Amino acid sequence: MSLYTEIMEQPGVIGQLLAGQWKTVQTIAAEIRHRQPAYAFLAARGTSDNAGRYANYLWGAHNRLPVALAAPSLFTFYEQPPLLSNALVVGVSQSGKSPDIVRVIEEGKTQGCLTLTMTNVPASPLARAADFVVDLQCGEEKAVAATKTYTAELAAIAMLSVALAGDETRLAELQRAPDWMRQVLALDAEIARLAERYRYMQRCAVIGRGFNYCTAFEWSLKIKELTYVTAEPYSSADFRHGPIAIVEQGFPMLVVIPSGKVFGDLLDLLKTLHGQGAELIVISDQPEALALAQSPFQLPTGIPEWLSPLIAILPAQLFAYHLTRVKGYNTEAPRSIRKVTETH
Amino acid sequence: MSLYTEIMEQPGVIGQLLAGQWKTVQTIAAEIRHRQPAYAFLAARGTSDNAGRYANYLWGAHNRLPVALAAPSLFTFYEQPPLLSNALVVGVSQSGKSPDIVRVIEEGKTQGCLTLTMTNVPASPLARAADFVVDLQCGEEKAVAATKTYTAELAAIAMLSVALAGDETRLAELQRAPDWMRQVLALDAEIARLAERYRYMQRCAVIGRGFNYCTAFEWSLKIKELTYVTAEPYSSADFRHGPIAIVEQGFPMLVVIPSGKVFGDLLDLLKTLHGQGAELIVISDQPEALALAQSPFQLPTGIPEWLSPLIAILPAQLFAYHLTRVKGYNTEAPRSIRKVTETH
Repeated sequence: MSLYTEIMEQPGVIGQLLAGQWKTVQTIAAEIRHRQPAYAFLAARGTSDNAGRYANYLWGAHNRLPVALAAPSLFTFYEQPPLLSNALVVGVSQSGKSPDIVRVIEEGKTQGCLTLTMTNVPASPLARAADFVVDLQCGEEKAVAATKTYTAELAAIAMLSVALAGDETRLAELQRAPDWMRQVLALDAEIARLAERYRYMQRCAVIGRGFNYCTAFEWSLKIKELTYVTAEPYSSADFRHGPIAIVEQGFPMLVVIPSGKVFGDLLDLLKTLHGQGAELIVISDQPEALALAQSPFQLPTGIPEWLSPLIAILPAQLFAYHLTRVKGYNTEAPRSIRKVTETH
Repeated sequence: MSLYTEIMEQPGVIGQLLAGQWKTVQTIAAEIRHRQPAYAFLAARGTSDNAGRYANYLWGAHNRLPVALAAPSLFTFYEQPPLLSNALVVGVSQSGKSPDIVRVIEEGKTQGCLTLTMTNVPASPLARAADFVVDLQCGEEKAVAATKTYTAELAAIAMLSVALAGDETRLAELQRAPDWMRQVLALDAEIARLAERYRYMQRCAVIGRGFNYCTAFEWSLKIKELTYVTAEPYSSADFRHGPIAIVEQGFPMLVVIPSGKVFGDLLDLLKTLHGQGAELIVISDQPEALALAQSPFQLPTGIPEWLSPLIAILPAQLFAYHLTRVKGYNTEAPRSIRKVTETH
């Protein structure tokens, strides 16, 4: 059972990454401060693209660095790639093998940009193409559905943010992440029990906002890859601009709503959904939000909002894992996909 | 029946926009050339955000201008917005009323950026906040589901691209758009007939890539808003990185695949899906792609790829409209949503 083992390994993996790559990240941060890029241009696919969404919020809110998520096909299919004047070009990929992501880094280098890769394979083409590499040090990830490399990518993004800001308080918070992760993994039996209820769920929507917009995307992706349920991710704001029409009595809504600046906005939506009779699966540390749910997954209290995506995804991964078993599917090798997908 | 009328009005609306706003757009293009922004920072929600995806590809491929799609909550919920040094800040909104989009434009102005709005309401707060305004001139849009303002936003984005490049060939192509739109709208009766088959469809996925990535998102949004079917949009590349696992015998896949640089990549995926027994609804001008579909929607030949999103969305809108009727829902006022959604 590689998937289950890899989910459970995460506190150790993150602890090791924090210890092993902090110096490298500080060197990278010094170079970024020196070069003063106007914005970051980040290329990734699948799970790594969801990690990129975290960078979009974290680097934007804490480092005032705007992030553009790259459209890799502009670099592979169309004539001329965009001019990346003074961008920090970042490629995030577990395998470091997808040719379209490698192409973006190569183009960044050709255009004289500072280039950075975050990957689990430091000998990969992507790593070789970049000026700097953060080695995720996860050990081999055997399950097709990525879990430990996702949280490692989030941690690497968080480490760079903390190093850029030189923020000792946030560094201390980051070092508490493995402990909080362990506390959440203790919910395993409870989540296994609650997953039974969704044996016949065919579709759902997943909501997160701000820092946890990425959590909604990643939760949704795990559910789709593993359980073949249609699961679409949204921010609470985008959901109100149209898709909310889909909600009817019993429609399953998965909501990530930890304490923080967007809590009030998400709670308003949660109350609306509750009023519409939606089935609610809620990840939160707040009793007020958990009380509205048929299936509440409780986070430890005290996690700062900026760090919550590293912790809040764990019950989501466990839910996807257990739902896969409940539905009788293969947790290790979902149909139609392989571990490394090479897209152009 | 405002929705049907508004879909059918589109050739006229686009013709009028091209004639009425070309001078304004040329003035804006001159100012952009003068200021030489490093990238565009574009804020929008819902349908207008889908139009923003078109800008991402079109301005990137034809004007070498990278586009960052804004995370508006960074400007409303979190302390400090990103530093937008030398960005072109763009707000796109039918109503011009959503406070979060207005906030992004205001912040751009405070930071000394060039600011631009595309809106159907030139007296709106969003228009008042910006240096320049493209008035979409669509007339009132009564149906809750946006159609004519979407294609008008695409046309405004295309006009700016053409004006920035000073490209006479593309200008002539753009002026043919209303004719191509009329040809596609003539498929109405055929689409109404084909929609019957999907009376009991509950979920589907929608695929587009490159310039038509936006078309996949907008088709999906119309289906969700109007028919309450779960419909998730993907690029062909992202779909291969995980979500393809969801496909089983009879799973409905909606694919936008016009001639152009990404045709081969999409055709490969279409063949894979066909081999998996998926139900295929295909919008294309290419017989090879259409032949694989249970429900083929044929585009006129000769439309250049960069312009195809303005035409390819029309059969998609008609399909969503007719499916709404087939399912017995209200085409004018979907449940739970209103015309103007104000998010923070």
